[in-house]
Amino acid sequence: MKDTTYGLGLDFGTNSVRALLVDLGNGRELATAVHDYPSGRAGIVLDPKNPDLARQNPADYLLGIEAAVKRTLAAARKIRPRFRPEEVVGLGVDTTGSTPLPVDASGEPLAFRKAFRRNPNAMAWLWKDHTGFAEAAEITALAAGHHPEYLAKCGGTYSSEWFFSKILHCLRTDPAVFEAAASWVECCDYIPAVLVGETRPDRIKRSRCAAGHKAMFNDAWGGLPARDFLARLDPGLGELRGRLYDKTFTADVRTGGLSKDWARRLGLVEGTAVAAGAFDAHLGAVGLGVAPGKFVKIIGTSTCDICVWPNNLELADIPGLCGIVDGSVLPGYYGLEAGQSAVGDIFNWFVEYLRPGGPRKGSHEELTRLAAKLRPGQSGLLALDWNNGNRTVLVDQRLTGLLLGQTLHTRPEEIYRALIEATAFGSLTIIKRFEDYGVRIDEVRNCGGIAEKNPLVMQIYADVTGLEMKIARSSQTCALGAAIAGAVAAGPAAGGHKDFPSAQAAMTGIRPRTYKPNPERHAVYAELYPLYRRLHDAFGTKDGPGSLYDVMKDLLAIRDRQLC
Amino acid sequence: MKDTTYGLGLDFGTNSVRALLVDLGNGRELATAVHDYPSGRAGIVLDPKNPDLARQNPADYLLGIEAAVKRTLAAARKIRPRFRPEEVVGLGVDTTGSTPLPVDASGEPLAFRKAFRRNPNAMAWLWKDHTGFAEAAEITALAAGHHPEYLAKCGGTYSSEWFFSKILHCLRTDPAVFEAAASWVECCDYIPAVLVGETRPDRIKRSRCAAGHKAMFNDAWGGLPARDFLARLDPGLGELRGRLYDKTFTADVRTGGLSKDWARRLGLVEGTAVAAGAFDAHLGAVGLGVAPGKFVKIIGTSTCDICVWPNNLELADIPGLCGIVDGSVLPGYYGLEAGQSAVGDIFNWFVEYLRPGGPRKGSHEELTRLAAKLRPGQSGLLALDWNNGNRTVLVDQRLTGLLLGQTLHTRPEEIYRALIEATAFGSLTIIKRFEDYGVRIDEVRNCGGIAEKNPLVMQIYADVTGLEMKIARSSQTCALGAAIAGAVAAGPAAGGHKDFPSAQAAMTGIRPRTYKPNPERHAVYAELYPLYRRLHDAFGTKDGPGSLYDVMKDLLAIRDRQLC
Repeated sequence: MKDTTYGLGLDFGTNSVRALLVDLGNGRELATAVHDYPSGRAGIVLDPKNPDLARQNPADYLLGIEAAVKRTLAAARKIRPRFRPEEVVGLGVDTTGSTPLPVDASGEPLAFRKAFRRNPNAMAWLWKDHTGFAEAAEITALAAGHHPEYLAKCGGTYSSEWFFSKILHCLRTDPAVFEAAASWVECCDYIPAVLVGETRPDRIKRSRCAAGHKAMFNDAWGGLPARDFLARLDPGLGELRGRLYDKTFTADVRTGGLSKDWARRLGLVEGTAVAAGAFDAHLGAVGLGVAPGKFVKIIGTSTCDICVWPNNLELADIPGLCGIVDGSVLPGYYGLEAGQSAVGDIFNWFVEYLRPGGPRKGSHEELTRLAAKLRPGQSGLLALDWNNGNRTVLVDQRLTGLLLGQTLHTRPEEIYRALIEATAFGSLTIIKRFEDYGVRIDEVRNCGGIAEKNPLVMQIYADVTGLEMKIARSSQTCALGAAIAGAVAAGPAAGGHKDFPSAQAAMTGIRPRTYKPNPERHAVYAELYPLYRRLHDAFGTKDGPGSLYDVMKDLLAIRDRQLC
Repeated sequence: MKDTTYGLGLDFGTNSVRALLVDLGNGRELATAVHDYPSGRAGIVLDPKNPDLARQNPADYLLGIEAAVKRTLAAARKIRPRFRPEEVVGLGVDTTGSTPLPVDASGEPLAFRKAFRRNPNAMAWLWKDHTGFAEAAEITALAAGHHPEYLAKCGGTYSSEWFFSKILHCLRTDPAVFEAAASWVECCDYIPAVLVGETRPDRIKRSRCAAGHKAMFNDAWGGLPARDFLARLDPGLGELRGRLYDKTFTADVRTGGLSKDWARRLGLVEGTAVAAGAFDAHLGAVGLGVAPGKFVKIIGTSTCDICVWPNNLELADIPGLCGIVDGSVLPGYYGLEAGQSAVGDIFNWFVEYLRPGGPRKGSHEELTRLAAKLRPGQSGLLALDWNNGNRTVLVDQRLTGLLLGQTLHTRPEEIYRALIEATAFGSLTIIKRFEDYGVRIDEVRNCGGIAEKNPLVMQIYADVTGLEMKIARSSQTCALGAAIAGAVAAGPAAGGHKDFPSAQAAMTGIRPRTYKPNPERHAVYAELYPLYRRLHDAFGTKDGPGSLYDVMKDLLAIRDRQLC
């Protein structure tokens, strides 16, 4: 038994991969390094003719692992000269998703073949690729008619960002790639498989998280959607089902041991435990200390909101959620995923696109400083946080922003504050949806740059929701969660942990400064929120008398016609 | 008979008075001069403790006449050395309104008395003084219950900007001033009275325009509102009625001859015809060539929209108009007044308060240049033009702005164009209201800085309304209209004109460049306008299922509470 053991978390993001070395005893983050993907634009392969297309070169992943891990270990040795590779007892992997890639029978990405080297369809289809929007609508329609239960677990709408939309779009538009693919694997399945040296598609341990949230996998209906269902979309898709998977694994499971080859390349020990992969937000939730009653928010350009609920307690299908998947976050618990399509992106839009306030007053810092002086309701403004659509609870990307209450004296910081408040109201709407379906929420744990750096945003969130806002101690909760997965996959005998909760107890925490709701401000927001809901329901739902649902839709239809 | 004759127009604005010398034969503007009012802030006496208060020192008017006329005549002599004062055959006066001032029995403003010299309540109550908002609501409520016919001629709501609201507020809050006042006169009644040297309140020729639009004067019910009605508001107000007036005069009527004293002070000829006064917008309409079918728009920070209709043809009460007054613009015609509470002010708000676009891209010129490249509907944006409330047809100052359709890529010029389009939709709503009640509109004549200088605004107005937009030849249509009134008051024998139409035929005109609707763009706006109306009706009216009327109201109520 070693005195000190470490977990190594590998966090594959949209533009780069991060490695993080964490002390398994206390969660101390010894060293970290980031490697930017070299391909495309900031790591994303784009198509100037098609703004929906976003791909990644899987070669970037492999180069990135080596570069990021080596630099992390070198940094660790500098900080702690006694550091030895064998102290690293487990590796975990989190990635974006759904980011599937087509592979051959040996598990080699088709993108590595000469014939497909420059073909984006043979690469990884990045989460934010929307080329399959028509196929998504087709899948949603078919499921609504024949298998509503499929949709009930993923918010009622199958997204263009998800597994089958992408594969079906490939089948339709690039049959050569589809035909050449022996199977399709999620990025979070592929990386652990590479590290353990077992990439044959039928032997890869597939992620419960990815399968359940993005591929409609559920043991209740025998795993993936029925072959008939898929065949009805296209016979080729039905035929593919047998070459996908019928078993999935939670992220505490050991996929295997680090291969000899990769141990050498990384400077680690052969056989070191590698955990099954999962998505970034879900392992981020683990790194944030998610547990029943602890709602976590990963706040970035958008948010991912996650909570868990014991899988031995009854839980209704919750309409409008991104997904409800047993074991997607913690084994033994339903993982419940929600989110807001834009949060930081809305603030960035205001600052970077509108560039308000003249030459000196338009920075986030200055707008925040001025907005902090305002009282709730003082500006008379109210906004909807839909500049990038609404992911939860309306599940509608074709919604747009709204700002109401402008006078001839409305100032930029008032709008900035209204936009912050709009995202807070959006968050409250998600929290209420959980609570309406019996999920208890006692506290909110936040992470991400905005949560760490903008106390005004956090205070407004506390004042709007009436809940205390806590901030993760770690700035890298996703990579931390991946390291925790590695630690649990290694197990206590190897110096790891026995399960997620004990690892979380040892390794995660919150910062001393928290944000408590101010009763007076909360009272004003309690008056404003019903007005937000009036607008939310009028523009976001078809039901009810006098719905204005079609106003935004008609505007988009006119816009699309004018742009083409 | 002289070869060349001139009319002198005196245009009393919010911040200054302008004199304009116009050739009565061809409308050529020989010379002009502006004198800024010295009192208060830009001529407006304010109260730092009460943003509703806006007064003017009547001494500024008298100093201003002398300064502006003398400079105008001096300029005229430079341009035309043969110019002689006796060639000026008539003077006309237009002013803001309702701008009433309390006077003593000799017609001297109370503000000139030592006792009241620093008392704003003894000054002229400028049109935009809103201190009487509670009294306005009281008058509206009483009239709605007892004399709905009073309200039917002024849009259904009696405004805080109008005559009796202001006087009643003075009575309630400063009885010493109210008691000292022998009568109250509109600024447009006071100035001509001063010039002819007959200011005794019972001998002043009161303006039909001011009386009809602002004091509920109508021959159909015996002039001013009934004594009982006024007494019910306050016995003192009922008692005042007898010291006001029972006759009114159109602006073609000769009030009298220029007094000896004022002839000397101005360097003009004693006995020169002085016309009865009227409001700036109404004489501006005359200067724009208003006639049946010719709808005129005076576009500034707000707009005033005016048209006329023969008073021997049937005309229903038109709900939501600012006023319907026989003879307020042209004798023999109903003067119909409408308007938008903010037009240029909305564009100025965007540029000056939001200061969008970073250091170099936020000017009106640059935003206009970029907005001109956009196609209708292309931005997906839709706005309501209510940043300063809605004057016509909703008659509701407590409405606020709305912007809808923002994405993460919305740019300042897209919003700028949406704001222009919103004011165009607002204008179309007014035009449709006239047409719905049988008033024919064939063309639109515009004046004001925006109309002259911003072709994009005019083209959008043409494309939205489907009507040709014409621009006044004169940049000073109000002062031109006043000069025309002087010419008609002088009459043909003195070298003037016999009536308004013949003076207009000789002296007014439009510029060669007009703006014709583009059929393709009009077709897109024909799709967008119903969406504007959906928002207009949802937020602006209480009727209909799912009205969102109270959203803006509740926000303002919360705001007001937070501010106090």
